[in-house]
Amino acid sequence: MADPRFYSVAGPFSLKQLAGIAGAEIGGAADPARMFADVAPLQQAGARDVSFLDNRRYVQAFAESGAGACAADPEFAPRAPPGMALLLTREPYRAYAKIATAFYPAPAPIPERAGTAAVDPSARVDEGARIESGAVIGARAEIGRRTRIGANAVIGHGVAIGDDCNIGPSATLLFCVLGARVIVHPGVRIGQDGFGFAPGKGGHLKVPQLGRVIIEDDVEIGANTTIDRGAGPDTVIGAGTKIDNLVQIAHNVRLGRHCIVVAQVGISGSTRVGDYVMIGGQAGLTGHLTIGDGARIAAQSGVMRDVGPGDDVGGSPAKPMKDWLRGVAAVERLAKKRGG
Amino acid sequence: MADPRFYSVAGPFSLKQLAGIAGAEIGGAADPARMFADVAPLQQAGARDVSFLDNRRYVQAFAESGAGACAADPEFAPRAPPGMALLLTREPYRAYAKIATAFYPAPAPIPERAGTAAVDPSARVDEGARIESGAVIGARAEIGRRTRIGANAVIGHGVAIGDDCNIGPSATLLFCVLGARVIVHPGVRIGQDGFGFAPGKGGHLKVPQLGRVIIEDDVEIGANTTIDRGAGPDTVIGAGTKIDNLVQIAHNVRLGRHCIVVAQVGISGSTRVGDYVMIGGQAGLTGHLTIGDGARIAAQSGVMRDVGPGDDVGGSPAKPMKDWLRGVAAVERLAKKRGG
Amino acid sequence: MADPRFYSVAGPFSLKQLAGIAGAEIGGAADPARMFADVAPLQQAGARDVSFLDNRRYVQAFAESGAGACAADPEFAPRAPPGMALLLTREPYRAYAKIATAFYPAPAPIPERAGTAAVDPSARVDEGARIESGAVIGARAEIGRRTRIGANAVIGHGVAIGDDCNIGPSATLLFCVLGARVIVHPGVRIGQDGFGFAPGKGGHLKVPQLGRVIIEDDVEIGANTTIDRGAGPDTVIGAGTKIDNLVQIAHNVRLGRHCIVVAQVGISGSTRVGDYVMIGGQAGLTGHLTIGDGARIAAQSGVMRDVGPGDDVGGSPAKPMKDWLRGVAAVERLAKKRGG
Repeated sequence: MADPRFYSVAGPFSLKQLAGIAGAEIGGAADPARMFADVAPLQQAGARDVSFLDNRRYVQAFAESGAGACAADPEFAPRAPPGMALLLTREPYRAYAKIATAFYPAPAPIPERAGTAAVDPSARVDEGARIESGAVIGARAEIGRRTRIGANAVIGHGVAIGDDCNIGPSATLLFCVLGARVIVHPGVRIGQDGFGFAPGKGGHLKVPQLGRVIIEDDVEIGANTTIDRGAGPDTVIGAGTKIDNLVQIAHNVRLGRHCIVVAQVGISGSTRVGDYVMIGGQAGLTGHLTIGDGARIAAQSGVMRDVGPGDDVGGSPAKPMKDWLRGVAAVERLAKKRGG
Repeated sequence: MADPRFYSVAGPFSLKQLAGIAGAEIGGAADPARMFADVAPLQQAGARDVSFLDNRRYVQAFAESGAGACAADPEFAPRAPPGMALLLTREPYRAYAKIATAFYPAPAPIPERAGTAAVDPSARVDEGARIESGAVIGARAEIGRRTRIGANAVIGHGVAIGDDCNIGPSATLLFCVLGARVIVHPGVRIGQDGFGFAPGKGGHLKVPQLGRVIIEDDVEIGANTTIDRGAGPDTVIGAGTKIDNLVQIAHNVRLGRHCIVVAQVGISGSTRVGDYVMIGGQAGLTGHLTIGDGARIAAQSGVMRDVGPGDDVGGSPAKPMKDWLRGVAAVERLAKKRGG
Repeated sequence: MADPRFYSVAGPFSLKQLAGIAGAEIGGAADPARMFADVAPLQQAGARDVSFLDNRRYVQAFAESGAGACAADPEFAPRAPPGMALLLTREPYRAYAKIATAFYPAPAPIPERAGTAAVDPSARVDEGARIESGAVIGARAEIGRRTRIGANAVIGHGVAIGDDCNIGPSATLLFCVLGARVIVHPGVRIGQDGFGFAPGKGGHLKVPQLGRVIIEDDVEIGANTTIDRGAGPDTVIGAGTKIDNLVQIAHNVRLGRHCIVVAQVGISGSTRVGDYVMIGGQAGLTGHLTIGDGARIAAQSGVMRDVGPGDDVGGSPAKPMKDWLRGVAAVERLAKKRGG
């Protein structure tokens, strides 16, 4: 059970309600009226808890779990312990996400304008917005309905933030326009100057950065991630894209819709990334590339050429996944031969 | 045209004025009195806009551009569309930087001492400085003329900041001395303890870090970059050096003058880097190395040995660029042989 | 000598006192009553300074040093210049750490509650704690004795921080419980949502993150490092573990006791790391791994499989150190053969 210091739980819900929430089917002979009070991991769950099995690694934990109910793929139903009610679905993790959200809905922000916040008189802040202590909001900024500006966050002049956004504490947003339902975690830096210099022996000349950052609806941006504003064109993050912590997005980058960008990735200037692209942790992409829709880039890859739609690449310099793995295997054989 | 929410444009300027600003020659038959109102990328520029061509990739966009004027290398002059005025120069990107700065000069900070700023009475803050909301300035700190301390930035006790510096919101500067015209982007961390421990089975002992960080004139430091103070000697960033976002500079590092350090690079303790060194994104340098003047270190390199002046290295562990590329090619051939 | 702008020095101490502090033996004929006023690096130290020799690279500097006293391994005693008093120990760096701490003890925080701090009335803040300007402390948070909350730091609702902790400026601590003597450097992000999404074509569903971050005693966390809270289980950092700058620790990770995690490392979700593990800079560990006690992971490694206790691994994908080095050598030979 989630620590009540930090969380409060809704519910309880019946198995039937949960099946409806999750879009799952009740497995076998379970009683649809059975009540559940919480969610819990397989290893800790008890009779009134709902859990989930999504990763084959945890089938044994599933088989031994005391969970009263579990979202699982029908394939694993035979391994369920007696007495466990099953919520059968091909997408058990999505089912769990919906159930957990029912038990722990994100609380609506309580409207507030903290006494120590500094809001420029020309800013337009919706009455239902929440402006926490120490937040600073610049001239002509616009803050939408039910949007929260966390403690000590800084919103620069002219910045527009849509409805139902959650801006974490100590984030700084400059020269940007955000859609609705955007989540910005603590310490995120949006809209500062891109790294634009005209190099030369007399010293590198700073190139004015005259674009913006456009963040579309439903984007989430992880803690301490940095997104520079465009040099002339804008930097754009497409709707539904999720960016993890400590990621670097350079000026003029365009990220498509529903991408997943794992922690510590770096994307260099003017690279365009399609929709539903997955980029593994610590991968780096050089500038001016085009990455096709649905491409998958392995962790720690160094991508120096365009990647086609749906392609899988890995290694540094990155190549098709299959070729990279062959190269790794070839080096291993070679090393053994010599070692032997 | 840059979004007027965020930017205001100066000018207009005549072609002749622009040639003077850029140090360029007017190409062919263009009218020196023709007026220009803005800068714009090649693809969006119109008849009253100035653009630039710096990357061979964009020659086609140049040939099709509607820009009224364009800074370009004489080599590409024959590809210019009819009616485009050319500003000919061997350094078109530097020319553009100067022209864009003329249209969009960095605004001088308006002197201010915000009501919610907390300035220690013993601090010496120039009257022309700008101290924004929520900024905190410690005992005996010194803030120079026309220097801006951004919202919620924290300047520690004793820190000295020169004239015309721009310290971004939420940056923290401790145990450091800055020259003039230094730009520190949001969330930068300067001067915290270096990672100094005397390891051992009884637990790692903390080693007091007794040095400073010295930032020379005209340095720029990217968002969320971290620069630890020296353990005894100082950590030093040489004049004119430009550091991108999320870079880690460990204690006692000395970076030379006019270096370029791209995002997510890590430089370990006590390494000395010469002048005009370029370090590509995500490269890592181990400690106690010497990197010669003008060396170039490729992105994602892992540098474990000294690098000579002017040398190019790549790979992890890093080797001369040529050897690294040969190794990459050799592995590819080997993989194909087996695959075939 | 440390810059008096920033540091004040204790002492002086006699050689005999220093030997006691350091747990070292006085070498040869040195006078135990000789007085010392400061610590300094070998190259700068004078007759009244204490220095140390820990790295074989610096033996020449040791032989030429003007230091009045030096902590060193007995092995190097014959290289000491005449007149240098020796503090002989097998652990000279630990000896130096103790001596430097005697000269420069961490100052106890002066109790304060700054006027611009915003402390929720339901928070329990010890009277001896120091709450600096602009700090924000949420509902029901608890702050221990002699703990410092730095300027503009944000402590979320319910967070509990033990005694003698030092929370740097602009850090944000949410959904977490800290032990005693924890050092959190500026800009650290603890306890934000982990990167939990149930991916899918209709858009990625956010999975509620219901755990906490538990930081045990004597942990140190570097600037701008991010530690996400658990998804259900907690994220745990074991006692005495030291984490450098810009490190990413994902949800549900368990780091053991007395680990050393160098800058820019990334550890993916649910990975368990044993005690006394060392992880070099920029290494990445994928999720759901088990890393045994005392393992050593080289810088820039990409760890994709479990690592046994005491094992050394390197490379990406990581393999036993010996195998990795053999592979590197094999590729070099191959490249030369072709090149020749």
